[in-house]
Amino acid sequence: MEEKFNLLKEILAEVADLQFAAAVLEWDQKTYMPPKGDQDRGYQMATLHRLAHARFTSDEVGRLIEDLQSYAAQQPLDSDEARLIRVTTREYMKNVKVPSDWVSNYSQASALAYSAWTEARANNSFPRFLPHLERIVDLRRAYAGFFVPYDHIYDPLLDDYEPGMKTKDVMDIFSALRLQQVALLKNIATRPQVSNSFLYQAFDEQKQWDFGVEVITRFGYDWQRGRQDFSPHPFTTHFGPDDVRITARILPDFLSPGIFGTMHESGHALYEQGINPAQRRSPLGAATSLGIHESQSRLWENLVGRSLPFWKHFYPRLQQTFPSQLANVDLMTFYKGINKVQPSLIRVEADEATYNLHIMLRMDLEIALMEGSLQVKDLPDAWNTHMQEYLGLTPKDDSNGVLQDVHWSGGSIGYFTTYALGNLISVQFWECIQKEIPDITQQIEQGDFTKLLGWLRAKIHRHGAKYEPQELVEHVTGSKITPAPYMRYLEHKFGEIYEL
Amino acid sequence: MEEKFNLLKEILAEVADLQFAAAVLEWDQKTYMPPKGDQDRGYQMATLHRLAHARFTSDEVGRLIEDLQSYAAQQPLDSDEARLIRVTTREYMKNVKVPSDWVSNYSQASALAYSAWTEARANNSFPRFLPHLERIVDLRRAYAGFFVPYDHIYDPLLDDYEPGMKTKDVMDIFSALRLQQVALLKNIATRPQVSNSFLYQAFDEQKQWDFGVEVITRFGYDWQRGRQDFSPHPFTTHFGPDDVRITARILPDFLSPGIFGTMHESGHALYEQGINPAQRRSPLGAATSLGIHESQSRLWENLVGRSLPFWKHFYPRLQQTFPSQLANVDLMTFYKGINKVQPSLIRVEADEATYNLHIMLRMDLEIALMEGSLQVKDLPDAWNTHMQEYLGLTPKDDSNGVLQDVHWSGGSIGYFTTYALGNLISVQFWECIQKEIPDITQQIEQGDFTKLLGWLRAKIHRHGAKYEPQELVEHVTGSKITPAPYMRYLEHKFGEIYEL
Repeated sequence: MEEKFNLLKEILAEVADLQFAAAVLEWDQKTYMPPKGDQDRGYQMATLHRLAHARFTSDEVGRLIEDLQSYAAQQPLDSDEARLIRVTTREYMKNVKVPSDWVSNYSQASALAYSAWTEARANNSFPRFLPHLERIVDLRRAYAGFFVPYDHIYDPLLDDYEPGMKTKDVMDIFSALRLQQVALLKNIATRPQVSNSFLYQAFDEQKQWDFGVEVITRFGYDWQRGRQDFSPHPFTTHFGPDDVRITARILPDFLSPGIFGTMHESGHALYEQGINPAQRRSPLGAATSLGIHESQSRLWENLVGRSLPFWKHFYPRLQQTFPSQLANVDLMTFYKGINKVQPSLIRVEADEATYNLHIMLRMDLEIALMEGSLQVKDLPDAWNTHMQEYLGLTPKDDSNGVLQDVHWSGGSIGYFTTYALGNLISVQFWECIQKEIPDITQQIEQGDFTKLLGWLRAKIHRHGAKYEPQELVEHVTGSKITPAPYMRYLEHKFGEIYEL
Repeated sequence: MEEKFNLLKEILAEVADLQFAAAVLEWDQKTYMPPKGDQDRGYQMATLHRLAHARFTSDEVGRLIEDLQSYAAQQPLDSDEARLIRVTTREYMKNVKVPSDWVSNYSQASALAYSAWTEARANNSFPRFLPHLERIVDLRRAYAGFFVPYDHIYDPLLDDYEPGMKTKDVMDIFSALRLQQVALLKNIATRPQVSNSFLYQAFDEQKQWDFGVEVITRFGYDWQRGRQDFSPHPFTTHFGPDDVRITARILPDFLSPGIFGTMHESGHALYEQGINPAQRRSPLGAATSLGIHESQSRLWENLVGRSLPFWKHFYPRLQQTFPSQLANVDLMTFYKGINKVQPSLIRVEADEATYNLHIMLRMDLEIALMEGSLQVKDLPDAWNTHMQEYLGLTPKDDSNGVLQDVHWSGGSIGYFTTYALGNLISVQFWECIQKEIPDITQQIEQGDFTKLLGWLRAKIHRHGAKYEPQELVEHVTGSKITPAPYMRYLEHKFGEIYEL
């Protein structure tokens, strides 16, 4: 039986190799690939994804899993062996429903769509992207069809990113959250606005880059096992625990995206670098969900990076880096400015109090596309209508509207939702951290993140996919995913800043 | 039957995708991969190579090839269909003899050896590289063993790089060549030496880079279908006809490696960019041999890039780029300096009159390693002895001796030989070009390479692997690979420079 278990692990390692190889090709496509390389790259990605899928869903794996159920039952419930078989069984049961042809078509369509999206955004041309996005939506609807019956057509997509989560659960959380966030926004709107105009000056790009590097090195990002490059849309990727890469988008005339984007991606990367290396090339050696992933990026970006204690330590360094821009901006002005609440068009630049509304807007549109009640050609109008409704704004063009995000071009529908979940989870974790590391504030004020990273490593990172997201959150915090801590946090933080 | 032919093409395309994916991973490893990424990268490369090999040598391919022999016989002899089946059959018959396990072990060993070599060279530590090279040699000897009986243990290795070529043929060519080259060197040594000290000054690296880019853009290198990066050992790689990349190594205090290295790699890249795109993902859409490949790089580096007509056009630009270094160096002094003949330690910096001796030295050592008459641990001593014998020099350390080349770390034994063949072939082609483009000298003097590139595209590049190397050379020049034109060229060129 142990022989069968080892054989299964060997096959899973081969599948991981193919997936990591595809990730290298994708990283390259998004950073360095020459413009005309996309056709061949599409073929290559399609082949890798198709082979990984075919191998994972092979009859051999099916038989091994079946044979190993009794072996799993004999192992301690929480053993790596039992958990590996459980996770593999869950993924196998899902993947076996998806034909190899679909996987290959999807991979090729998304490789081509990415290039089209890059051009479309640069030239503000939704029509350039339209046929590609139509293809993606068609493929995604077909995908959901493999999982009939479902409670909701969006469920199978969501489950890929957030195992065990249902559309209805998210909607329940979001509808409670929406009311509270909107109420908070109204309250803030009655107060005098803070200024962040000092963020919109000329900032040398190399100096921004270097400052970001300094900060995330202090966080604990391991440069022997990673690197940072430029890309139009920042992302984190990994090809194993020892090669976890991030990218940055740095603007010459706006400080926030470079600095906070770098902290954000480093949060993702610290998670991947912290997964138990003994689970290398195994399904357990992966993040458990995108929501948990996002909880880590948001924790470092917001709960650390937009906090007063953090800037008590780092603001003098930033002033030293940009004396002509910041010498006359005091710490509290800076702190309030980077936390200015104002409905805006671009999700990645949104403040903490409005961010989730950007997500809800996207979830609404995705659900409408999936249900078929919205046609892709009508998406720009629907985007603008929703943007007006949720945030009271209309984009000046599609590049700042419906074309702003990379995700749909990569075929990711259902993905955005996990961003809002990540926000909620990050504060659930943070409340625990405050209890279990009582001097966390003092440590951050000293620029010391050792204990914080140690806590995250032990409680979250190390486990990889051993526990499902809801299980992990409950394990760490004592409750399932819930919006209450997040609202407490927002009300406290912005209560102080806006003197509510 | 056509259905079977198309099925074969589909399988071959999948194999190409896997090989191209492995090439992307290798490019990444040699340019950007973080130091600790090598373990996982080794697994990934091994899996890709093993799967490509397993797919190509599958029974399905064997049956298709067998069934398609009669179909091939019905096609015109020179048709793409007949040629594709012929090339595929040849490669299949070779590959099927190599077990998948060997391929996987070899791939993993060479990925690890590359990292070890990088460290070994940086730290001048042959012992760091020794166990890896021992493993490579063992694997290569095992590889030859799959092809018993052979005339010579080196034959199966050579055939991978230069299809149809035998060790004995090369030895015959080399022994004639060696005598003539040594005689020429002795002759040159009787004449006053030219100076190239002006090449050893401080040259801004970015300006060197930019000058190289300007030159190869004029050659016709297509930046929409390629890019250039830094790497410790320059190379060209491709992931299809539309993504052909080169790398450069630029020294801050020596002008030649950056400029001539860039021209060299661009020659390789122009070949790959010129292969018929209709043969994308097919075995015919590849270079026919490394010797032909090297003929293209040497043609652009030496016959164009080290010629007087070329510098009549480009030298004013170079002087303008480096006025303080070159203003007082006139064209003829520069031309003679870049062609200075002097036995030296580093192959990639060797002049045209000594270069082939570096190759012969390596071929001798490789043959001794393969025959078992030389142990890897004794290689540094053997290197130094041979270096003294061939070139009258002893390296000051192993980094400038046995550790200087990347090739063995990648598992390539037999590869060097093709460099000398490439030199010979380049001049065979050049003699034809001089006949068929009578004003080639004037065109080069005007910095116009359109007709030259057009000729190479039509006569050589376009065909990819359709013709075997000897066949192609004969097709283009009317004779097989022969050293006579190369010796004529050396004697004429250096006769003028050294006034022999």
